Amino acid sequence: MAKEVNLVEQMQSMTIDLNSKVLIEKAERDGVETMYKRKLGYKVQCGFGLQGVCCKNCGMGPCRISAKTPRGLCGADEHTIVARNYARMCAGGTAAHSDHARDITHTLALTSKDGGYTIKEPKQLIALANLWGIETEERDIYDIAHEVAYEGLMEFGKPFGVLRFLTNAPQKRQEIWEKYGYEPRAIDREIATVMHSTHVGCAADCESIIDIGIRCSMADGWQGSMIGTQFSDIMFGSPKPVRTEANLNVLEENNVNIILHGHEPTLSEMIVLASELPEMQELAKEVGADGITLSGICCTGNELTMRHGIKIAGDFHQQELAIITGAVEAMIVDVQCIFPALAEVATHYHTKFITTSPKAQITGSTYMEFHEETAIEDAKTMVREAILNFKNRDKSKVLISDLKSEGVVGFSEAEIIGQLNNVVNTQIDEMNTVKPLVDALASGVIRGVVGVVGCNNAKTPSNYKHLTVMKELIKNDYLVVCTGCAHEWMSEKAIAIGTYVVVSGIDTYLGVMPPVGGSSRAVNYLCGGLKEKVGACFHVCEEPHDLAKMIMEDIEAKRPNFEEIYSKNVATNK
Amino acid sequence: MAKEVNLVEQMQSMTIDLNSKVLIEKAERDGVETMYKRKLGYKVQCGFGLQGVCCKNCGMGPCRISAKTPRGLCGADEHTIVARNYARMCAGGTAAHSDHARDITHTLALTSKDGGYTIKEPKQLIALANLWGIETEERDIYDIAHEVAYEGLMEFGKPFGVLRFLTNAPQKRQEIWEKYGYEPRAIDREIATVMHSTHVGCAADCESIIDIGIRCSMADGWQGSMIGTQFSDIMFGSPKPVRTEANLNVLEENNVNIILHGHEPTLSEMIVLASELPEMQELAKEVGADGITLSGICCTGNELTMRHGIKIAGDFHQQELAIITGAVEAMIVDVQCIFPALAEVATHYHTKFITTSPKAQITGSTYMEFHEETAIEDAKTMVREAILNFKNRDKSKVLISDLKSEGVVGFSEAEIIGQLNNVVNTQIDEMNTVKPLVDALASGVIRGVVGVVGCNNAKTPSNYKHLTVMKELIKNDYLVVCTGCAHEWMSEKAIAIGTYVVVSGIDTYLGVMPPVGGSSRAVNYLCGGLKEKVGACFHVCEEPHDLAKMIMEDIEAKRPNFEEIYSKNVATNK
Repeated sequence: MAKEVNLVEQMQSMTIDLNSKVLIEKAERDGVETMYKRKLGYKVQCGFGLQGVCCKNCGMGPCRISAKTPRGLCGADEHTIVARNYARMCAGGTAAHSDHARDITHTLALTSKDGGYTIKEPKQLIALANLWGIETEERDIYDIAHEVAYEGLMEFGKPFGVLRFLTNAPQKRQEIWEKYGYEPRAIDREIATVMHSTHVGCAADCESIIDIGIRCSMADGWQGSMIGTQFSDIMFGSPKPVRTEANLNVLEENNVNIILHGHEPTLSEMIVLASELPEMQELAKEVGADGITLSGICCTGNELTMRHGIKIAGDFHQQELAIITGAVEAMIVDVQCIFPALAEVATHYHTKFITTSPKAQITGSTYMEFHEETAIEDAKTMVREAILNFKNRDKSKVLISDLKSEGVVGFSEAEIIGQLNNVVNTQIDEMNTVKPLVDALASGVIRGVVGVVGCNNAKTPSNYKHLTVMKELIKNDYLVVCTGCAHEWMSEKAIAIGTYVVVSGIDTYLGVMPPVGGSSRAVNYLCGGLKEKVGACFHVCEEPHDLAKMIMEDIEAKRPNFEEIYSKNVATNK
Repeated sequence: MAKEVNLVEQMQSMTIDLNSKVLIEKAERDGVETMYKRKLGYKVQCGFGLQGVCCKNCGMGPCRISAKTPRGLCGADEHTIVARNYARMCAGGTAAHSDHARDITHTLALTSKDGGYTIKEPKQLIALANLWGIETEERDIYDIAHEVAYEGLMEFGKPFGVLRFLTNAPQKRQEIWEKYGYEPRAIDREIATVMHSTHVGCAADCESIIDIGIRCSMADGWQGSMIGTQFSDIMFGSPKPVRTEANLNVLEENNVNIILHGHEPTLSEMIVLASELPEMQELAKEVGADGITLSGICCTGNELTMRHGIKIAGDFHQQELAIITGAVEAMIVDVQCIFPALAEVATHYHTKFITTSPKAQITGSTYMEFHEETAIEDAKTMVREAILNFKNRDKSKVLISDLKSEGVVGFSEAEIIGQLNNVVNTQIDEMNTVKPLVDALASGVIRGVVGVVGCNNAKTPSNYKHLTVMKELIKNDYLVVCTGCAHEWMSEKAIAIGTYVVVSGIDTYLGVMPPVGGSSRAVNYLCGGLKEKVGACFHVCEEPHDLAKMIMEDIEAKRPNFEEIYSKNVATNK
C-alpha cells in the first residue's frame, strides 16, 4: 500500500496543476495508465538519442557515435548525424503545420455563398488578393476566394520562384535571407529537399545541413503558418477578445460533454454549428441531459475559445485526464498532439474516442471520416453519437475536479491595435498604430515583449517551467504574449517554429535541451554562429529562473540600441 | 603482428571481391580507415533500432519499446512506431529519387538548340507530349520540351488530381490503386503527408500509416523515377547495348584518372564532354599523362556506361578503395550514396575529393558548385583541377589491383525488344513485340524473369548474397535483369522501390531484414496482408540459397495460371 501511495505521489509531482493531481490519483484507482505512469517506466532515456547521435537513415544502421564508434558505417560523424536529425525535425514540423494549412486552403476553394463554409472576412480576403495581384474589382467574393485558394495551393509546389509572403518582412531581413540562401522555393519542395539531403550518401556538412533545415522551417513560418492563420480568419472570422474559462472543471456534470481535440477549425467549427442546432439541443434533453457542453484541448481548443469563447478543457498533458473524469461522452479529434493512448484510456469509461482524419487514424478509436464537402452532415453524425452515448455514462465513475481559471483571449493583431487605441490621445496621436506600445517600451514602463509558445514536455513537470518564466517576466515589467500550450517544447513543429523565429531575427530560448548536444558544431552554430548571420540564435537553459534572467538580461542589453533608434525617429518626425 | 593480420583477414572476409581484399590490406598498411574497419567497431548494433521500435519523432523521446516500456510516452505502441519509421523511410527514398528527377526536369526546361543541354531523342519527347495532351504540330522541339518540363514540374506540387503516369499501368492495376487509396496526388505532397502523419500525435494505426508510406512510394515509382528516366533519355540519349568493363582495374596507371560518383547525368555528361575536349587532352599530355580516363561509381557509373561505354570503377562498397589505389586524381560527386568518409580517405593521398551540389556538401571536400546554366564551363574547371593534380601523385602509393570483368550493358526497353527481333521468324511473327520472350516463358525454356536491384549493405559480405542468388537463378533457367548495385538493400530509396514494386503487383524478396521486426502487425501486413490487397508482398530470407529457392518456388506456383492465360490468348488469336 505504501508503495502505491508512493507511486501516485511520484506521478503527482510531475505536474503543478491541482486538477491533474486529483485525476492522476483517480486514474490509478481506476486502473488506467496515463503518460505520468509511462514516464515512471522511462527512468533513463537512450543517451544516444538524447544527444542526437543515433542515425537510422539507412539500412546499414542504426549507427551511433561513441568513443568506440566515432563514425557511422558510411563515415558520418556526430556533427553530420546531429544535423541530419535536426533537419528532419524541421521537415516534420513544417509538414505538420503546412499540411494543415493546405487543408484550410482546400476548404477555401470549397467556400460558397450557401455552402458549409463561407467568407466571414471579405475585406481581409480582398486585401490579400490585392497583395497577390489578383483582380478584385466587380468580382464575386467567392470567385476571388477560389483564385486566392488556387494561388495559395501553388505555394506548396510551384516550379519556379520563391514564396510570396517573404515580402511581408522588412527589406533588410529579406536581404539577409537572400544572402544566406534561406528563401524557400515551395513549401513541399523544401520538405522533400531536407529528406533528400539527409538521405544516406548526401550532405555531410553540419552547418549546411542545418541551413537546409532552416530554409524548410522558413517555408513553415513565412508561408504555411501564414496561410493557415489568414485563411482561417477569412473563413471563420478574426479572433476578438472574449472571456473564457479553462481547466477540467469546465466540463458540466449534467450536460453531454463533447471535447474537441486537435488542430483543424474546418472540423471544430462545424461541430460548433451542429451542436447549436435545435434538433441536437432537443435530443440532448431527450436523453436526460440539461444541454451540450463543448470544450477544447490543444490548438483546436484555442481556436474555439478565441472565436466563440468556448471553454478549454485542458492542455496536451491533460488529454487523458479529461476522459478519466468519466464525464466525457465523446472526444472528437483530427490531427496532431493526439495521444494514441486515448484509445486505451477510453475503454475504461463510456467515452467515444472519435478519429476523423485519414491522416491520423488510431487503432481502437471509432473512425468517422470527416469530409469538407459534407461537413455539416458529418458533424451532426458525430454530435448525435455523443448525445446518444450520454445514457452509457456511469455516474459512479464521474469526478469533475474543482478548479478552473478565467481569462480573456483572442488578441489578434487587429485587436491588439484596437486595444491600444484606447490609450491614444486622440488630439495629438495617430490612431490604429502600435505607437502606444512602442512609447511604453521606450519609456521603460514596459521593458520588452516576450512571446511564449510551445507544448508540454513529459521530460519536465507539466507547466512548471513556463509558468515560472512568465511570472518572473511579468513581475519585472515584461509583456508576455502567449499562444499554444506553453514553453516546454516537445513537437517537431516547435523545432520548426523556433528555427524560423531565430532566422527572422528573434532570439529564442528553450527550456528543454533539443537532441543536438552530441555535436559541438551543431550547438555552436545554433546557439552562436547563427547570431552573426541573422542577428539571433537559440539559447538553452533548463532552470526556469535562470532562463527568465537570461531573457531579461538579453533584452536589457538590446534596450540602448532600441532607445537610440526611437529617439532618432522621434526627432525626425518632429 | 598476429593480431593485425587477423584484423585484415576479418575485414577481407566482409567482401568476396578479390580486388577489394587487396585494397583492404593496402588501406591498413596506409593507415586508412574504411567501412570494413568501422564495421569491426560495430560488433553489436542497437537492437531497438534494428527492430524499428525506437521513436525519436518528438522531444519527449527518444522512446523505445521493451518489456518494461511497452508504449512510448504518448502511448504509441511498437506497431505505430515501426510503421512511423517505415513510412519515413519511404518518404526519404521518394524524396531522393524524385528530387533528382526534379533537377533533371529543371534541366529539360533549360535545353536549347545551342546550349549545353540539347534534345537527343525528339521522337520520345513528342510521344510523351502527345500522351500529356501537349500540342506538338509545327512547334519548335525546344518549345515542346519546355512545356513538357513545366508540366513535369507540376507533378511535384499540383493542387488537384493524381499523377499523370498512373495511367501507364494496366486498367486492373489502376482499379486496385483507386480502391485502396494508393493514387498519389503530387510527389512532394505525398512526402509532406508522410512527415505530417508520422508527426507526434497524428496517425497511430499500423496499417494505415504503412498505406500512407505506400502512396508516397507510388509517387516515386510511378512519377518521380519515370520522369527521371524518360527525361534523361530524351536529353542524353536512350541507352544502347555496349561492351564495358568493371572493377578497380579499369583505372589506368599512366592516365589522369577521374572518377564520377553519384547520380545525376546533368553533371557527369558534361564532365564527359569536357574531358573529350582537345584542350583537356593536351593539358593531360603536358602534365606527363598519356591521357584522361573517366570511370564511374554507383548510378552515375551505370548511366555513363550504358550511354558511353565508360567503365565502372566500382560499387558502393568500393568507393573508398578506389581512392586507396593512389591513382585517382579526382573523385567528383553530386548526390546520394557518397560516403562522408571519402573526405578523410582522400587526405591520405593526392586525390581531390570534389563535391558539387548544394544539397550534398561534405566537410573536408573541395566544394565546386555545379550550375546547369554554366554546365560546360563548370565541368572544364573540375577536369582541369584533376589534370593539374596529376603531378601530385605519389607513385610509390599506387596499387591498381589486377582484376576487371567484362560485360554488355544498356538494355533499355526499346533495345530489349530490338534484341528480341533477332529471334523472330519474320515470315510468320510480328516484329517489335515482347512475344518471343513470352513464348520462351510459356514453353518453359525460360522459367521466369527476376529483377535484381538494390545496393550493398555493410551488414552482409559485399556482393556475396546477390551473386549467389543470381547464380542460382541463372543455373535454373530464370532470366535475371539487373540494375543499380545489387540485392542487399541499404538505402531508403530501396525501401521506396520495394514498396512501389509490391503495390505494382510484383513479389519482392529482401536479403536483409528491414527494421520492422519489432511489430508483428507490420510484418504480417508487409509480408502477408498486402498480398490480399495488391496480389504481392514482401518476402525476407537472409540465406541466399534459400532465398533463391523461395523465388523459384513462388514463380513455379504462378506458372500454371500464366500458362493457362497464354493458351487462351493463343487460341483467341487463332
